[in-house]
Amino acid sequence: MQTLFKPYKKEFDHSYSFGAFPTIELIKFRPEKVIKVFASSAYRDEGRAELDELCCKNGIELEINDKAVSRLSPKENCLVIGAFSKYECELKEEEPHVALQSPSNMGNLGTIIRTMLGFGVHDLAVIGCGAHVLDPKAVRASMGAVFRIRFSHFKTIEEYMKRFNKHELYPFMLDGKWTLDNLPQRSDKPFTLIFGNEAAGLDEHYKNIGKSIVIKHSGEIDSLNLSVAAGIALYEFTKAS
Amino acid sequence: MQTLFKPYKKEFDHSYSFGAFPTIELIKFRPEKVIKVFASSAYRDEGRAELDELCCKNGIELEINDKAVSRLSPKENCLVIGAFSKYECELKEEEPHVALQSPSNMGNLGTIIRTMLGFGVHDLAVIGCGAHVLDPKAVRASMGAVFRIRFSHFKTIEEYMKRFNKHELYPFMLDGKWTLDNLPQRSDKPFTLIFGNEAAGLDEHYKNIGKSIVIKHSGEIDSLNLSVAAGIALYEFTKAS
Repeated sequence: MQTLFKPYKKEFDHSYSFGAFPTIELIKFRPEKVIKVFASSAYRDEGRAELDELCCKNGIELEINDKAVSRLSPKENCLVIGAFSKYECELKEEEPHVALQSPSNMGNLGTIIRTMLGFGVHDLAVIGCGAHVLDPKAVRASMGAVFRIRFSHFKTIEEYMKRFNKHELYPFMLDGKWTLDNLPQRSDKPFTLIFGNEAAGLDEHYKNIGKSIVIKHSGEIDSLNLSVAAGIALYEFTKAS
Repeated sequence: MQTLFKPYKKEFDHSYSFGAFPTIELIKFRPEKVIKVFASSAYRDEGRAELDELCCKNGIELEINDKAVSRLSPKENCLVIGAFSKYECELKEEEPHVALQSPSNMGNLGTIIRTMLGFGVHDLAVIGCGAHVLDPKAVRASMGAVFRIRFSHFKTIEEYMKRFNKHELYPFMLDGKWTLDNLPQRSDKPFTLIFGNEAAGLDEHYKNIGKSIVIKHSGEIDSLNLSVAAGIALYEFTKAS
C-alpha cells in the first residue's frame, strides 16, 4: 500500500479515476479495489454527500488534500480522484463479448466500453499489447463505465479462442465477407465482435477466423472512426436479440 | 490578405488545416479558399510530391517555413498547414441533412462530419451558436472531410425549417416517441437527423417538431456518446435507401 501517490505511469500496479462521477462508479462497483479517495477542498457540489456516504459505508479513506489532487490530476478542473489497485476479471462464457486487438487510443477505448454497457454487453477481451483498460484516460473516457464491465487481457486471438471456444467470432474488416446489414444466419452461440486498432485495423489472418464483417461506407473516407464502427456493430448485433 | 498569420482565434475570418492529409483535402475540394500553404523543412514523406503538384496546379503558394509551422501549430508533429478563408455553403434541397444544435465538442463535430461522408450525407446545418465547422480542431477531427461537405449556420431550428420546408425532421431525444429500430413509415421526403449537444441534448420544444427518435440503451449509462449516436442513426437511415 503506497503512502505517497505519484502521477500515473503504466508500470504502476495501481491507477486513478479522475472526477467525481467516475470515482463514485469505482466505489459502487469495485469497492474492494479502492486504496484511497482524494478530494479538493473546493469540491462542494451535491455529489459530495453521496461521496462521503459511499466512502464511509465501504470503509474507504477520503482525504481532503488539494496538493495531492493537483499533483495527480492532469486537468485543473478535476476535484476528486480515486486511487485503486489494478485488477483483471474472468469473462463470462455464456455472454456476448467485444474483443479489441491492440487498442491504442484511450478515448476510443473508453467510449467503446461506455457503448458496450449501453447495449448490454459486459465482457471485453483485449488482445495483444496496447492501451490498458484501467489507464486513467480510458477510465475517464468511459465515464467510469469500465468499473461495471468485466475485462481480460490475452496475448493472441488464438489464446482467447482456446479459452472461449463456444463463441461465434465476427472480425470487423474493410474487406469483410459479409456486410453488417446483411449478416449470415446467426447461431445460438454468444457472439464476439472483434475490432482492430485505429491505425492498422485487423491483419489478414483474421479473414480465416469466424465470419468477417464489413460496415459498408462510401469511398469518400478511408474508414469509420473506431468507436463509431463499434457502436454501429453493437447496435445491430443487439437489436435483434 | 494577411501577410503575418497568427495562431487561430475564432473571430478570424480565416482558419487552418493542420496536417498533410487534411491540407490535401482542402486543396482538392476548396482550392479557391486557400490563402497559402506552409510546410516544415522536415516534411519529406511520399505525400510531398502530391502536395507540390496540387499547389502548383492550383496556383497556391507553398512556403517552406519552420517558424510559421511551429507558431501556428498546436502539435509538434504537424508538418503541413493550410491557411484558408472561412466560407459558408448553400445546402441542397433534395438531399438528406444532418442538423446539430449548438455543438460544443470539436472532436465530436469532426467525427460526425467524417461519418456523414461515410454514409453519403453531404449537407450539415449548424443551429444556434457553438463550435464553428471550420475551427482547426473540427477540421482535424474530420480528417479534412469537412471540405467535401456543404454546411450552413442557422440561428434557430425555425429559421432552418422555414428555409427547408420539404424535409422530414427526426430529432434524436432520450424520450423520443419512436425507437430507431422501429421507425415510423418513411416518406419520400429527404430526412433531417437532428442532434443536441453533449451536455444538454435537445430541449423539450423539439418534441413538437417532426418525429422524435430514441436509440434505446440500457439504464447503465446516461446517454450514448454523441458521435456514436449520430453514427448509429446515419447507418440506420441510409441502409434502407
